[in-house]
Amino acid sequence: MTMTRRYVQDLQDGETIEEVFLLVDKQLRANRNADLYLLATMRDKTGIINGLMWNVSEESMAQISAGDHVQIKGKVQLYQGSLQVIVTRITKVASDNLDPEDFQPTSSQNVSELLEQLKSRLLGIDDPQLRSLMECFLIDEDLMDSFSRAPAGVKAHHAYQGGLLEHVVRLMEMAWRIGDLYPEVDTNLLLAGVFLHDLGKVREMAFEGAFTYTDEGQLIGHLVIGVEMINEKVAEVEKLTNEPFPVETALRLKHLVLSHHGQYDYGSPKLPMTPEAIALHHLDNFDAKVHEFARSIEDDPNTDSHWTPFSPRLDRKLFKGAN
Amino acid sequence: MTMTRRYVQDLQDGETIEEVFLLVDKQLRANRNADLYLLATMRDKTGIINGLMWNVSEESMAQISAGDHVQIKGKVQLYQGSLQVIVTRITKVASDNLDPEDFQPTSSQNVSELLEQLKSRLLGIDDPQLRSLMECFLIDEDLMDSFSRAPAGVKAHHAYQGGLLEHVVRLMEMAWRIGDLYPEVDTNLLLAGVFLHDLGKVREMAFEGAFTYTDEGQLIGHLVIGVEMINEKVAEVEKLTNEPFPVETALRLKHLVLSHHGQYDYGSPKLPMTPEAIALHHLDNFDAKVHEFARSIEDDPNTDSHWTPFSPRLDRKLFKGAN
Amino acid sequence: MTMTRRYVQDLQDGETIEEVFLLVDKQLRANRNADLYLLATMRDKTGIINGLMWNVSEESMAQISAGDHVQIKGKVQLYQGSLQVIVTRITKVASDNLDPEDFQPTSSQNVSELLEQLKSRLLGIDDPQLRSLMECFLIDEDLMDSFSRAPAGVKAHHAYQGGLLEHVVRLMEMAWRIGDLYPEVDTNLLLAGVFLHDLGKVREMAFEGAFTYTDEGQLIGHLVIGVEMINEKVAEVEKLTNEPFPVETALRLKHLVLSHHGQYDYGSPKLPMTPEAIALHHLDNFDAKVHEFARSIEDDPNTDSHWTPFSPRLDRKLFKGAN
Amino acid sequence: MTMTRRYVQDLQDGETIEEVFLLVDKQLRANRNADLYLLATMRDKTGIINGLMWNVSEESMAQISAGDHVQIKGKVQLYQGSLQVIVTRITKVASDNLDPEDFQPTSSQNVSELLEQLKSRLLGIDDPQLRSLMECFLIDEDLMDSFSRAPAGVKAHHAYQGGLLEHVVRLMEMAWRIGDLYPEVDTNLLLAGVFLHDLGKVREMAFEGAFTYTDEGQLIGHLVIGVEMINEKVAEVEKLTNEPFPVETALRLKHLVLSHHGQYDYGSPKLPMTPEAIALHHLDNFDAKVHEFARSIEDDPNTDSHWTPFSPRLDRKLFKGAN
Amino acid sequence: MTMTRRYVQDLQDGETIEEVFLLVDKQLRANRNADLYLLATMRDKTGIINGLMWNVSEESMAQISAGDHVQIKGKVQLYQGSLQVIVTRITKVASDNLDPEDFQPTSSQNVSELLEQLKSRLLGIDDPQLRSLMECFLIDEDLMDSFSRAPAGVKAHHAYQGGLLEHVVRLMEMAWRIGDLYPEVDTNLLLAGVFLHDLGKVREMAFEGAFTYTDEGQLIGHLVIGVEMINEKVAEVEKLTNEPFPVETALRLKHLVLSHHGQYDYGSPKLPMTPEAIALHHLDNFDAKVHEFARSIEDDPNTDSHWTPFSPRLDRKLFKGAN
Amino acid sequence: MTMTRRYVQDLQDGETIEEVFLLVDKQLRANRNADLYLLATMRDKTGIINGLMWNVSEESMAQISAGDHVQIKGKVQLYQGSLQVIVTRITKVASDNLDPEDFQPTSSQNVSELLEQLKSRLLGIDDPQLRSLMECFLIDEDLMDSFSRAPAGVKAHHAYQGGLLEHVVRLMEMAWRIGDLYPEVDTNLLLAGVFLHDLGKVREMAFEGAFTYTDEGQLIGHLVIGVEMINEKVAEVEKLTNEPFPVETALRLKHLVLSHHGQYDYGSPKLPMTPEAIALHHLDNFDAKVHEFARSIEDDPNTDSHWTPFSPRLDRKLFKGAN
Repeated sequence: MTMTRRYVQDLQDGETIEEVFLLVDKQLRANRNADLYLLATMRDKTGIINGLMWNVSEESMAQISAGDHVQIKGKVQLYQGSLQVIVTRITKVASDNLDPEDFQPTSSQNVSELLEQLKSRLLGIDDPQLRSLMECFLIDEDLMDSFSRAPAGVKAHHAYQGGLLEHVVRLMEMAWRIGDLYPEVDTNLLLAGVFLHDLGKVREMAFEGAFTYTDEGQLIGHLVIGVEMINEKVAEVEKLTNEPFPVETALRLKHLVLSHHGQYDYGSPKLPMTPEAIALHHLDNFDAKVHEFARSIEDDPNTDSHWTPFSPRLDRKLFKGAN
Repeated sequence: MTMTRRYVQDLQDGETIEEVFLLVDKQLRANRNADLYLLATMRDKTGIINGLMWNVSEESMAQISAGDHVQIKGKVQLYQGSLQVIVTRITKVASDNLDPEDFQPTSSQNVSELLEQLKSRLLGIDDPQLRSLMECFLIDEDLMDSFSRAPAGVKAHHAYQGGLLEHVVRLMEMAWRIGDLYPEVDTNLLLAGVFLHDLGKVREMAFEGAFTYTDEGQLIGHLVIGVEMINEKVAEVEKLTNEPFPVETALRLKHLVLSHHGQYDYGSPKLPMTPEAIALHHLDNFDAKVHEFARSIEDDPNTDSHWTPFSPRLDRKLFKGAN
Repeated sequence: MTMTRRYVQDLQDGETIEEVFLLVDKQLRANRNADLYLLATMRDKTGIINGLMWNVSEESMAQISAGDHVQIKGKVQLYQGSLQVIVTRITKVASDNLDPEDFQPTSSQNVSELLEQLKSRLLGIDDPQLRSLMECFLIDEDLMDSFSRAPAGVKAHHAYQGGLLEHVVRLMEMAWRIGDLYPEVDTNLLLAGVFLHDLGKVREMAFEGAFTYTDEGQLIGHLVIGVEMINEKVAEVEKLTNEPFPVETALRLKHLVLSHHGQYDYGSPKLPMTPEAIALHHLDNFDAKVHEFARSIEDDPNTDSHWTPFSPRLDRKLFKGAN
Repeated sequence: MTMTRRYVQDLQDGETIEEVFLLVDKQLRANRNADLYLLATMRDKTGIINGLMWNVSEESMAQISAGDHVQIKGKVQLYQGSLQVIVTRITKVASDNLDPEDFQPTSSQNVSELLEQLKSRLLGIDDPQLRSLMECFLIDEDLMDSFSRAPAGVKAHHAYQGGLLEHVVRLMEMAWRIGDLYPEVDTNLLLAGVFLHDLGKVREMAFEGAFTYTDEGQLIGHLVIGVEMINEKVAEVEKLTNEPFPVETALRLKHLVLSHHGQYDYGSPKLPMTPEAIALHHLDNFDAKVHEFARSIEDDPNTDSHWTPFSPRLDRKLFKGAN
Repeated sequence: MTMTRRYVQDLQDGETIEEVFLLVDKQLRANRNADLYLLATMRDKTGIINGLMWNVSEESMAQISAGDHVQIKGKVQLYQGSLQVIVTRITKVASDNLDPEDFQPTSSQNVSELLEQLKSRLLGIDDPQLRSLMECFLIDEDLMDSFSRAPAGVKAHHAYQGGLLEHVVRLMEMAWRIGDLYPEVDTNLLLAGVFLHDLGKVREMAFEGAFTYTDEGQLIGHLVIGVEMINEKVAEVEKLTNEPFPVETALRLKHLVLSHHGQYDYGSPKLPMTPEAIALHHLDNFDAKVHEFARSIEDDPNTDSHWTPFSPRLDRKLFKGAN
Repeated sequence: MTMTRRYVQDLQDGETIEEVFLLVDKQLRANRNADLYLLATMRDKTGIINGLMWNVSEESMAQISAGDHVQIKGKVQLYQGSLQVIVTRITKVASDNLDPEDFQPTSSQNVSELLEQLKSRLLGIDDPQLRSLMECFLIDEDLMDSFSRAPAGVKAHHAYQGGLLEHVVRLMEMAWRIGDLYPEVDTNLLLAGVFLHDLGKVREMAFEGAFTYTDEGQLIGHLVIGVEMINEKVAEVEKLTNEPFPVETALRLKHLVLSHHGQYDYGSPKLPMTPEAIALHHLDNFDAKVHEFARSIEDDPNTDSHWTPFSPRLDRKLFKGAN
């Protein structure tokens, strides 16, 4: 093993590498000549990279499984805009001497600080019943633990543990700062809605190994799961406080969650019909789009052009600048 | 009061009328000259009709309220394809001597027979856990009572108590009869899905007086309300049977409800992703469209043309035939 | 030749094979190095499979042609979700000793039984003039022969002779069974429409060898061809019966055919404007979609996931179940 | 009766009028007070105008019928951008002393000259079989008579007898003049396609009295009717010439007709797939749109603004100019 | 004249009124009986209201013109959700004794304070060339004067002088406050873009009397006009500073203006392709939508329902709350 | 070097070649085995072709650069419908003895003749101010030189110098010939609009080496650049003539340019709102579509089928004919 770890994010086109990674996924595939090759998805805390190993046999590859730590030897290359490793040797290694932190992708920001910021904003809500409901969520340790480790989405490249928390805290901060510019929006409700809008992703995605959708996630979706979670916590807060939670507030919260995608086309079963709901939708949209633009520009490995490659998802190229 | 009741469905353009109706809605409006007129929505068990009374005062109209039985005198006329009454006198009458059955719009079919047919199909489900869940719904008397009285929709003209039940039983019959033609569809699940798909309408609509949407109905919608109802009954059946209800079956039922509108555009947050879900969507669609075509042709009061008037909703005229 | 025939539907990933197939299509292609390879489409009565043979010459391949029976030797492999054969030898064999039935893809159901079912439903129509028209179609042996052998579509995988007949008979059965639930739909017309709606496919597709579109099919389409066929048979029935066929019935039948795709987008030049037309459209849609869902789930060779791969055509994954 | 006829096109807002018109349509309607009024659609050769007569009785109006010539007295007024007449007296007059030409709306151009121009272009086609087919249409006197009197569409305002002929001849002239700029387009086929593309309108519309759609027109449409007409004439020309008409030419002609709306959305069951078909579609579109723009600007009675009123059909206002 | 002015915003359904307003527009129209009535659009600094006066003559109305101050007597009434006045007398009054401030609709906020805030943000830009360009705009007194008086749009109801300035300053404040949350967005460029994005409205609209579009506004639009204004000021700043303005900065500014509607559908000829452009689009959208929701809820005069009337523009009702 | 030059347009599948081309673009790429290969884009005056050279090293390829003339040796092959060269040797050659004309792609028509035709049409405009403006463009030699060399678009295959000029002259000829058929269209304005509509492409594209979009082209687009060019020339003509250019004419010209794509979707910020604008849009569309159809049919190298391959861009196959 190398003395100084070579992280995924630092790999360069053309370098040879010998390093340990966590094997996230392992597939044997046949090429057109019916020869087998290995497609290995590997990661460390800084990112995910694919490895290809030609002409392998099922027997030789039987010794490694997804979830193992593996030491690989190979050559890094740029292929269709992404780096990959052409692997010449792959072996399982014992996990005992490895630092688990090296292989956990995490938010670039400090999770506990972000959590504190979140709690402080939610506990600053001055509607006592709404604040009590928020507390019911915050004291659910399993939930908050999952929430802190959830990625913002399942797409391999930019999915990292803590990504959802980062997104939510940034939205909450924005909502807080501009509150006085929009007195017609109830900031209490908006802050609660920011917290709840994507909470269902905790059950929509499995994010222990590779990030994937759960069956529940695909059949029901995080919007409706979010409503189920609100129902559970409303029942809890009513037990705790021994008084009914206001029906209209509960409806408004569920509506915030169900409508936050803003359009039927994007899977919202209801259009936003309150000022808070339309505000939440547009804040969420602003953050997602600005983030995606900035990331696409930063991540473009190509330095010859003023423009990123055409992105089918965004339906455009982005301007990186001429200077 | 007339000896033989003159029902809404029998009224003719041009006739003078003196009859008692249930006042469903009462509005005072100003015309362009700032004179007030009354717009009264009235019904009996056979239908709904609007009444207009010119040059009224707020005081004189203060004596009648929505929910009252009123005796009106006036002249029936055809206006833009619908009948209405030009009212010359309107007075409140006591409800004591009136037969409530005369004013309840109901299904043209016998409700208790339809309910029996529904129960028999659901109790014929041979998956014991799914059947137990169905029983939990069927023994909830308040729910089944509401379900039996719910209209299929809120639109005034074709909304009648029992309309939802009729629709559901017709779908269930169809699903039952064609089951063997589609062995790849699980008939048990499909029958349960037919029963549950619109059940949330019981809370989406208020159908005691006039039919309107509830706040919950507009903010959350009958699809998500349906999921909440499944969650409640699954908890009940688990208590009753003292064993867990199968997670996958519950997910499949919720998915049936959430996806039955078939497209994001129509407010489904999920596309149908199981054979039962796509079957339910298309059966529902078939029934709704064939029913609407037939009704539009039957209800067209105009006998001069082979064609109905252009329907903006259907985006077409319908052919009534040349013979 | 092997003693027991190895059918396409029974082939397994990884097996070596030596068997005779019907060569449906033969293409020589150059790879990036300008070397030629053979892409052979082969079939027997159970299905279609592609074969690839590397580094061939035009000369060596000149001895085989589409339509020949060929004996191939090779290895079966799974490639991007479909099985294919890497061929190492291919030779033409005489057809004399082969059983033609082994190479004719046919409906899984008995064609003559299906034809009987079809006839019996059409001859049960109680409008005498409409029934006479149906008879004119049924006694046209060439037409009925083509109709019995037509696939439901040209897509290689699920196209088999008799597929169209299966689809039509299933629709007819469904229309028949639910007739009494929809008294407002004229069952006579609907049954005739079910028979006629895709009849133009007999000229739209060439289905003797591989299934392809004819020039007429692409330039005119099976909807308008269907109208032309109605015109021809109406002329015949008028000659036979020596009385005019009712104009309105002919118009209604043509309208059923022209509108059965239900929307302009799907190539219908007219929207359905009669109860029978809307019913036909939705029955056709129900059958097509339920069939496609069921087939996509059955045909998925991948057993690791609860989900099929994403289908661009359906714009979704399908749930195969967790059990 | 006035000495000098006062034509529809010359009427002015505010003038009083006493003149004879052809009664195209007569409707009795009830206003909100259940009083009857007459809505009369009247025309002369220069245009169509509506008349309203208040407080009439069914009896008094029984003496006039659509198709009669009527003398009316009333006042012209501008109402929502169109002129109408408030009628104070209406009586039937004998047709004997009237000049039928005064009441026939016709093309502003000479019909027989246009017909000559059409014939000369079609007989100039140098493919003998195609020219023979064109002759079969041209010698069908009933057909050519209807064709010469057909309007370009049914919309009351700009529908006039001869409108279709004008449109077709203008297109043919354009196709002829630019032929050498596009050598890749077969001018023979294009000229034939120009002639045939809207020919089905002869049966799609009834244009003897008011212009309306026929049942056949609404259920089948002029595109498919056009194909039926081609089939009939191809059979005729084969009989006449005693040789088969070329199959491909017939397919290309039918394709020209079926695809000329250019998109599925506009009711074409096939997209244009030949150079002639795409050319015909765009020529037709050019003529229709330029004509509609010019007409909307000319016909705008409002002189205060540089802009026409917003046209929902065009989804825009048009600029009439500041000078 | 009343002692205390009765402002438009304080008028109540049913009150009688005698007050002076500025006549913004005057139209004489004919009703169905050909009688003339006056439709007068009147305003004071708090809003705009329509007045109707029945049975007027052209002569009697010739004494008043748009732009006059008029004293009217009449009765206020609610008609289809808006207040209007049924006028019984209208006379021109001299402007001498009137306070012009009473009739100027203005922003609810202090224009000069808003202007100061705008200037301070723009002069805080730390790119010297961009700041110089901003100064060129700020020292153009005519331009800044128009900009301060421009409404945000032409729709009568919410158009008031200063509306555009309010919108721009609110956006600028928001951009400023969240700048550090999005370090990947160049705040200098974004602030300049916020200032420039709607600047072309100064020429797109005429806002001296009633607010209308100019010919230039309709033919070219405020996006392209904005580009023309940037070109003019870039030429000025180059003359002033005697050095070329950076080409890329100018392109980025023009792109910000041209793409700020975010989609081709909304009239942007270019999609946002820089982080600043996507940020500007979404901020603009957020502000517009939240504002519209809040305003629709506030302005709804109907107090019986928890919901606003259906808004075709928003394609939904809005929830005002049950409390 | 061969005696008779072998041009790109004459190359055949399978031939070996040794010829000199202009190297337009040079890319080194890694295949899946991390081996490098060269992708070379080469051209002569008749077309563009790609060359592939396997297993190269960065060092060996350092001797050639885009812009060089290179002699290559290799074998031509058809790959996925296009010809390419598998290169076995590539070397730089001196340009001294080469005829530059051999490597300049140019219009198939004579550029100077086309320019004369353009000038003659524009100088035939009889509105003196508009003609003066046209002269200002025509005397700008740099501009006209660029205009003459601009391709109609950047797509490699059909981009050739002079393509834009050809397109514009063909449109102008068409506009001229049909002028008298549409007297409601101002031919002067239309001719000027035809000339100006794509003029901005001169700055939108860089067409000296390979054809690419400029930054300005992508951020602003040729429509808005065209408006900027009109503004510049209007300023010039005002200086030259010492009188103001008519405001409305300038607006109409800018509107012609901005609206010529006809729909928001296609990047026009304004819909056509004058007869000339709608005419220009449809002429442009006609020419583009007919040209594309004809070219797709001509260029299809496959001779086995009556149909071109499916074109995703056109969303259809094209019929090449059965004969």
